[in-house]
Amino acid sequence: MSNPLDLDRIAIHDWGTHPCYPSDLRDRLAAADDDRAYVVRDAADLDDCDAVVTLYHHDAFPDAVEWVHCVRSGYDDFPLDAYEDAGVLVTNSTGVAGDLVGESAIALVLSLAKGLHLYRDQQAEREWSRLPVERPFELGRSSACVVGLGQLGGGVASRVNALGMSVTGVDVRPVSQLGLEAVHDVVQLERAVAESRFVVLTTPLTPDTRGLVDADVFAAMRDDAYLVNVSRGAVVDQDALLAALDAGEIAGAALDVFDEEPLPASSPLWDRDDVVVTPHAAAQSDNHGEKLARLVETNAARLTAGRDPWNRVV
Amino acid sequence: MSNPLDLDRIAIHDWGTHPCYPSDLRDRLAAADDDRAYVVRDAADLDDCDAVVTLYHHDAFPDAVEWVHCVRSGYDDFPLDAYEDAGVLVTNSTGVAGDLVGESAIALVLSLAKGLHLYRDQQAEREWSRLPVERPFELGRSSACVVGLGQLGGGVASRVNALGMSVTGVDVRPVSQLGLEAVHDVVQLERAVAESRFVVLTTPLTPDTRGLVDADVFAAMRDDAYLVNVSRGAVVDQDALLAALDAGEIAGAALDVFDEEPLPASSPLWDRDDVVVTPHAAAQSDNHGEKLARLVETNAARLTAGRDPWNRVV
Repeated sequence: MSNPLDLDRIAIHDWGTHPCYPSDLRDRLAAADDDRAYVVRDAADLDDCDAVVTLYHHDAFPDAVEWVHCVRSGYDDFPLDAYEDAGVLVTNSTGVAGDLVGESAIALVLSLAKGLHLYRDQQAEREWSRLPVERPFELGRSSACVVGLGQLGGGVASRVNALGMSVTGVDVRPVSQLGLEAVHDVVQLERAVAESRFVVLTTPLTPDTRGLVDADVFAAMRDDAYLVNVSRGAVVDQDALLAALDAGEIAGAALDVFDEEPLPASSPLWDRDDVVVTPHAAAQSDNHGEKLARLVETNAARLTAGRDPWNRVV
Repeated sequence: MSNPLDLDRIAIHDWGTHPCYPSDLRDRLAAADDDRAYVVRDAADLDDCDAVVTLYHHDAFPDAVEWVHCVRSGYDDFPLDAYEDAGVLVTNSTGVAGDLVGESAIALVLSLAKGLHLYRDQQAEREWSRLPVERPFELGRSSACVVGLGQLGGGVASRVNALGMSVTGVDVRPVSQLGLEAVHDVVQLERAVAESRFVVLTTPLTPDTRGLVDADVFAAMRDDAYLVNVSRGAVVDQDALLAALDAGEIAGAALDVFDEEPLPASSPLWDRDDVVVTPHAAAQSDNHGEKLARLVETNAARLTAGRDPWNRVV
């Protein structure tokens, strides 16, 4: 329980700057069945606003409002101490993305297992030719290690499990609700990945996880293993990844996130047969706006009633 | 129960002609823990053989042997009457492919839902750009119609169901074991497809199903629906498919099978954004040889014991 907040006017910040804002979100919020006003505002113009829905942190927020909702799952750019000192609540959108990112992650897992990206390359050349018989493999006899067992990790783990794969989870926190054999310590990561055909990264970027997947982890992985990253680029040491691919220490990777985004045209990741690149699009979906709007409205109602919001970060 | 068969020598026919024969199948059969000989033989040289493992029908078979095992699921080239008249058993390999084709079918479903083939095209151009926000969609709020509820259809239906999709089944035979709402008549197909985002074809090619998916079916489908064909090319009227795509009557297709295979380089299907082409590879897997060998050995043992074989066609 918290003190009830007065949330008459909520700013929508960074609007129109990025596809992470679904194009229908503003209209959906404006049509919300409450008596709040949702207004598109710049950070310099928040005097009459009680809260902010935003893509990125802005230094004006902790002093200007009582609640900041981040439309992304990742909040690594938010100085959490500054919000805590100012007594400002921060929530994120991880629940919205769990199912969507889970589906995108298994889409990438399946594409790698069956070589669909290689067949698409052949299609561009009008080439009818099967992969070597030993290349595609059965997922149901395979295994995955999911690193980060929050909502994203749960969204992935439940789906790979439903497809018959055995799943091991890795997290810094004790996790029990997923029914996985969880390894409660990222320093045990090397042991956990050693048996898995897929290593799927769904962990937030924190000081603990920056550069977590490094040369040692790649060396520990099976040489027929695939890395799937739908979390944050900086969780992976990208140079070590390229070295591991070139050395045949792992079989390939599907990457939705990168150190630098957009991925520079000069990156050697683009034109590899063993790397699938998607443009930070794992959470994209036609119902993303609807889900985000429902979360913001629900949290606004909960905070107004003095209840804890969903996805509280600070 | 049948009369026990003497199966001392089993010919492997069409060996080395096609990737449908996994490269390790011959060695696996030779290493089988029974006292049968498995020999690579031409159809003209079957005098001392009791059975044939084969890719295609050959007119010599009904007179030469007592049992023919087809290494594919499809047996549309086999003149079943001729085998029946000769009292020769025919079995196929549908159980082997159920899980493999099921996985490949959902790989195609997910790839279409998330636009992975479009991102792969962009990757070739080093282009970082997201699809329009309304293009990728959530599978868990979606629906599939699976046409043909044999082992392949079951392999697909169980998986799309596990991913949260609602599933309707269509078959000419009453089917209950899958727990689906089944429409027991292919003439009701137009009604069944009308509500589905995906129409997945897993039916054998028979006189009833040849050309089954025609202009009327495409007209009945949603304009945001996708066709996935992992059965036989001739189940679809290919000209009607191209017309439906051009007219926007459906949103796209993923095709593993075609009227003419290999798909001719001149086919307009190759270079479409809305069509994914794979080279009849849905059943491909590194463990395909092991699964086929186990099925052949099991059926040989059952027939020797006078028991009914698995996957009996005649």
